[in-house]
Amino acid sequence: MIKIGIVGGTGYTGAELLRLLTHHREAEVVLITSRAETGKAVTEIFPHLTAYRHLQFSDPNTTPLTECDVVFYATPHGIAMKQAVALLEKGLKIIDLSADFRITDPEIWFKWYKMKHECPDLLPKAVYGLPEILRESIKTAQLIANPGCYATSMIVGLAPLLARQLIDPTTIIADGKSGVSGAGRKADLGLLLCETSESFKAYGIGGHRHQPEVEQILSRIAGVNARVCFVPHLVPMIRGIETTLYAFQRTDNQVIDLQAIFAEFYRDEPFIQLLNPGVPPETRQVKGTNLCQISVNYRDDQNLIVVSVAIDNLIKGASGQAIQNMNIMFGLDETHGLGAISVLP
Amino acid sequence: MIKIGIVGGTGYTGAELLRLLTHHREAEVVLITSRAETGKAVTEIFPHLTAYRHLQFSDPNTTPLTECDVVFYATPHGIAMKQAVALLEKGLKIIDLSADFRITDPEIWFKWYKMKHECPDLLPKAVYGLPEILRESIKTAQLIANPGCYATSMIVGLAPLLARQLIDPTTIIADGKSGVSGAGRKADLGLLLCETSESFKAYGIGGHRHQPEVEQILSRIAGVNARVCFVPHLVPMIRGIETTLYAFQRTDNQVIDLQAIFAEFYRDEPFIQLLNPGVPPETRQVKGTNLCQISVNYRDDQNLIVVSVAIDNLIKGASGQAIQNMNIMFGLDETHGLGAISVLP
Amino acid sequence: MIKIGIVGGTGYTGAELLRLLTHHREAEVVLITSRAETGKAVTEIFPHLTAYRHLQFSDPNTTPLTECDVVFYATPHGIAMKQAVALLEKGLKIIDLSADFRITDPEIWFKWYKMKHECPDLLPKAVYGLPEILRESIKTAQLIANPGCYATSMIVGLAPLLARQLIDPTTIIADGKSGVSGAGRKADLGLLLCETSESFKAYGIGGHRHQPEVEQILSRIAGVNARVCFVPHLVPMIRGIETTLYAFQRTDNQVIDLQAIFAEFYRDEPFIQLLNPGVPPETRQVKGTNLCQISVNYRDDQNLIVVSVAIDNLIKGASGQAIQNMNIMFGLDETHGLGAISVLP
Amino acid sequence: MIKIGIVGGTGYTGAELLRLLTHHREAEVVLITSRAETGKAVTEIFPHLTAYRHLQFSDPNTTPLTECDVVFYATPHGIAMKQAVALLEKGLKIIDLSADFRITDPEIWFKWYKMKHECPDLLPKAVYGLPEILRESIKTAQLIANPGCYATSMIVGLAPLLARQLIDPTTIIADGKSGVSGAGRKADLGLLLCETSESFKAYGIGGHRHQPEVEQILSRIAGVNARVCFVPHLVPMIRGIETTLYAFQRTDNQVIDLQAIFAEFYRDEPFIQLLNPGVPPETRQVKGTNLCQISVNYRDDQNLIVVSVAIDNLIKGASGQAIQNMNIMFGLDETHGLGAISVLP
Repeated sequence: MIKIGIVGGTGYTGAELLRLLTHHREAEVVLITSRAETGKAVTEIFPHLTAYRHLQFSDPNTTPLTECDVVFYATPHGIAMKQAVALLEKGLKIIDLSADFRITDPEIWFKWYKMKHECPDLLPKAVYGLPEILRESIKTAQLIANPGCYATSMIVGLAPLLARQLIDPTTIIADGKSGVSGAGRKADLGLLLCETSESFKAYGIGGHRHQPEVEQILSRIAGVNARVCFVPHLVPMIRGIETTLYAFQRTDNQVIDLQAIFAEFYRDEPFIQLLNPGVPPETRQVKGTNLCQISVNYRDDQNLIVVSVAIDNLIKGASGQAIQNMNIMFGLDETHGLGAISVLP
Repeated sequence: MIKIGIVGGTGYTGAELLRLLTHHREAEVVLITSRAETGKAVTEIFPHLTAYRHLQFSDPNTTPLTECDVVFYATPHGIAMKQAVALLEKGLKIIDLSADFRITDPEIWFKWYKMKHECPDLLPKAVYGLPEILRESIKTAQLIANPGCYATSMIVGLAPLLARQLIDPTTIIADGKSGVSGAGRKADLGLLLCETSESFKAYGIGGHRHQPEVEQILSRIAGVNARVCFVPHLVPMIRGIETTLYAFQRTDNQVIDLQAIFAEFYRDEPFIQLLNPGVPPETRQVKGTNLCQISVNYRDDQNLIVVSVAIDNLIKGASGQAIQNMNIMFGLDETHGLGAISVLP
Repeated sequence: MIKIGIVGGTGYTGAELLRLLTHHREAEVVLITSRAETGKAVTEIFPHLTAYRHLQFSDPNTTPLTECDVVFYATPHGIAMKQAVALLEKGLKIIDLSADFRITDPEIWFKWYKMKHECPDLLPKAVYGLPEILRESIKTAQLIANPGCYATSMIVGLAPLLARQLIDPTTIIADGKSGVSGAGRKADLGLLLCETSESFKAYGIGGHRHQPEVEQILSRIAGVNARVCFVPHLVPMIRGIETTLYAFQRTDNQVIDLQAIFAEFYRDEPFIQLLNPGVPPETRQVKGTNLCQISVNYRDDQNLIVVSVAIDNLIKGASGQAIQNMNIMFGLDETHGLGAISVLP
Repeated sequence: MIKIGIVGGTGYTGAELLRLLTHHREAEVVLITSRAETGKAVTEIFPHLTAYRHLQFSDPNTTPLTECDVVFYATPHGIAMKQAVALLEKGLKIIDLSADFRITDPEIWFKWYKMKHECPDLLPKAVYGLPEILRESIKTAQLIANPGCYATSMIVGLAPLLARQLIDPTTIIADGKSGVSGAGRKADLGLLLCETSESFKAYGIGGHRHQPEVEQILSRIAGVNARVCFVPHLVPMIRGIETTLYAFQRTDNQVIDLQAIFAEFYRDEPFIQLLNPGVPPETRQVKGTNLCQISVNYRDDQNLIVVSVAIDNLIKGASGQAIQNMNIMFGLDETHGLGAISVLP
């Protein structure tokens, strides 16, 4: 039985880790911390998680994390990087759902997150936890940087094209749309139902923090510098990300069997659903699941490739992917605990 | 007092024409037709429109449209083109909210709408009713092709760039998002709350009918062929369109004051709200109004211009713009009847 | 021109006062205060209210309220009662949208609001501002206690029955449902889209503050003590209240023409829409308007009367009713500035 | 392995049966019929149900239902009663999710459903499938009338009170609220997102078909005739029912420990969650699950008991309860296949 600790368990990704792990038969949550809710029962904050009625949020300063085999950080940015060295030295594994270890270059990290990195030496050792791209590295990793939700949708949709050098890597555009839960569980006027329902808007037109981690991975896949214009939008719904990706094909109007290329690239992937041409990914089809739906299309009048990707931002975009990473790190079946079907309608 | 007839009044654009015209002091609706609801009072179908309690839907086959000064077609495609010649010969003005007269080339029309055009001779005489672009032609037009909702958002966002030859007109990408009312008022499984709420998806990844009308107008503005990759998406809300437009700047990394160019282009336009850089258009800010919010931005790492546009699809994207066109055609103040403020929250 | 001051203008009722008053041709807002936003332009907080681009939120401590003819309090409970005496002595009129003057008995006020009342002497002079019930008193009032939103729906639905002694006044049940805007504009976890959307619940099962003001008015109408079991519920939408009222008829199974009684009671009322039997009030039909829809029904197997009432909680339930009261106090046409039609769909 | 047939599998209850049964390890769906979709793969209509990619909808006229051990009817009313006799004679068990066998008196059935009953002789043999009330009868039943969704919420909330004769059984009021999926999956203008979102209304103010089945069961529990005034309301959300129940206590102002009575009545019930006083049931807490949350409260000023109940209308209100009944009929653990936790937020 894998012993799991969760640091920062009162947000939506923490709650989803708890929920998903109740279905996992080879791992159990033995401790969970929360600065604000220390001493409260998990079921006081999340009444639906009745399986945890005997677990309490504990004080992050005094909780013996080293009793765990693996620690999930479901914290804001800037926490994991302060504690990682000590835990890694004790032999624990870490899966960090925040951004602390996603960007290899500490200067780029500083530029986007406005914090000095506390352990730049660890950055090269962190593995970017996107199994469909980096499974082999994840198997032996001790420290996982769990990808951003938007970033997951972008990389999965573009990787087959860049790996085969099919697109001009400087022309990539990513128009992302996310439900409100992507902003987290915090008391903020801008997240009220009355301020978000029945409306739609772009935000971060000038740039968004998921851009550098995407460019870093895509450049590695392409072998040259990739550039992505990413514009996130807020959808009046709770969960789900759909990202529509656009890139110009490198060879003019050459007929390429994009469907076959994607099918081959994601052959045997348990969580990738490649849809038939013309069938659009829908966020409701993946809601509550670790699935990722993809559709790839070609517009010959502009020699443009259009890819649509849908995921659940809290699962394949966060907690589900984290558990998928854990399964790989511990040599378990990768789909363990992740077999849910979306509840439709 | 301008006498107005509405053909096909039981859809959402018909209802919005009626609602908006109750606030118009120099025009009145004297007749409204509906095949399905002949003989019923308007208030039976639309109880909120109490001002029309004495108006009934009449039979389109026997209604004397020629008693009107202007006829609005709020019908599906294919109706107006059968009746327009007779009405125009009697001296009436026509404002067609359907697509029948939007595309000048009958072959392109056939390709996208799968119907033979019934009066191709009229096509050159129809004026595309987008006042911010073609106001002078509208003043003297007898037949107005009222623009598509998405098309309005795309053209308004791109016109200043193409008029100044700032962008490569073959690289335009338009990622559009619309509320469900854009699909009209019809009994269709795909439009149920249970099938659309709490979900987001692209549709028409292979192409959408608003693309040819946009390319036609943009090419005219640019003086060369413009190409647009338009992908529409469905937002779980009732009203509103936001379109994010992307195009590569023609001159590499030259610093251009895009804000000033847009401000100049739309100077004195009563319905254009140019927002400050970084402030995103929001559909709720324009809901229930004829306003169009625009934000223009530049991404120097890719030499890419990003424009976000928000409108109410049923007003600036349909019925409000139709009334704006009527005001111009009859020499009235263009804002007549269109002074509403959005009801927030 | 009536000069209006608004105290506490950054909530939803403040914003609605501003919006509605832009349509009022005999009154203007000359000052608006906000502790938190002092010095900011109104359009910075509410960009849709472009008519107020030259008005700034001013400091409540230094703003010369006495320059106004009437002051609206759109504040939390406990503010108006501290300032009312001074303003009334200067001859100003006050319309208080908070609860400070709704309950005549200071002990009952203390019981429900947990604050000692600061000016109990004023309580008998305050008029409960529900025009359909107390129009004559409002005409000469200097101090108006604007009714609660739920309270409005309850009193309007029950008054005709109690005035005619048709129901047992101890058996009244009021099952109320409100959109989330009823909780105000405040950063609160419980009001997030992610916490309220796609869910429904009762709250205040043990009691709600609108109960005592309703019982006070209903008892006055009935001439005997009335008791109401009021249970409020939260609806996943922005605006609107529907309250279903139940009461046992006093005389067993006597056939009474309830429709005629309601029609007579609300004859000539501009904002009451009595619907035909079987046609249910819908909140969307009254959204954005000062209207109140009512349906009255009888269940003979239980000798029970069922009334359904729908209003917009921010308009007939707050700001619209406040303006209606102002119109009456100043001898204007009661419907001034309140002619909007709901924007459907 | 129990072999299951589903008749009428393209509605929401059919889809939910399929989804829930993928988690059931002792039963499998061997055939599913649909008149409209004969020959199509299940995954063509419900792409999320990938476990059924090899199952097709078959023609109801030619499908060999007798190969099954149990048949679920997920059809409109009037179908099961035509086929039940033949299947029962062959020894199959039937669980009918429609209303055909819910009402014992064929005249009452005719009054509410406007159809002559086709097999009134079977009515006394049908068991009303509400396990918390009638578990012993279900164990040996061959024909189950699966309760209505609203009916489930009402009976569960009232049974403990009536069983102990605590309330006057003629004064019961049930104010029900349901998400839109309660109306089923059908192309109907009234169910469009644009017609239901951002609005709330009562419907069936004059009566609703779930009333007679509730009165029948409650009268049996009480030992005297019970009368319920049931008013259903439409909530702008997909799933969930909350019903608030009101009834006057029989003995005046006697202090009764309602919490203890409910706790005792539902002791050991796996799907009943009795909440602490003051904690309201929320539909989101039970969404996607077979759970039923209950809160019981007392208002001493009116001697009134108020019970709030929340269920998922498609699960505890339909398909989940049907599977719970199957488990009981076949001697399995009652919770088999029904262990899901709601996906929050």
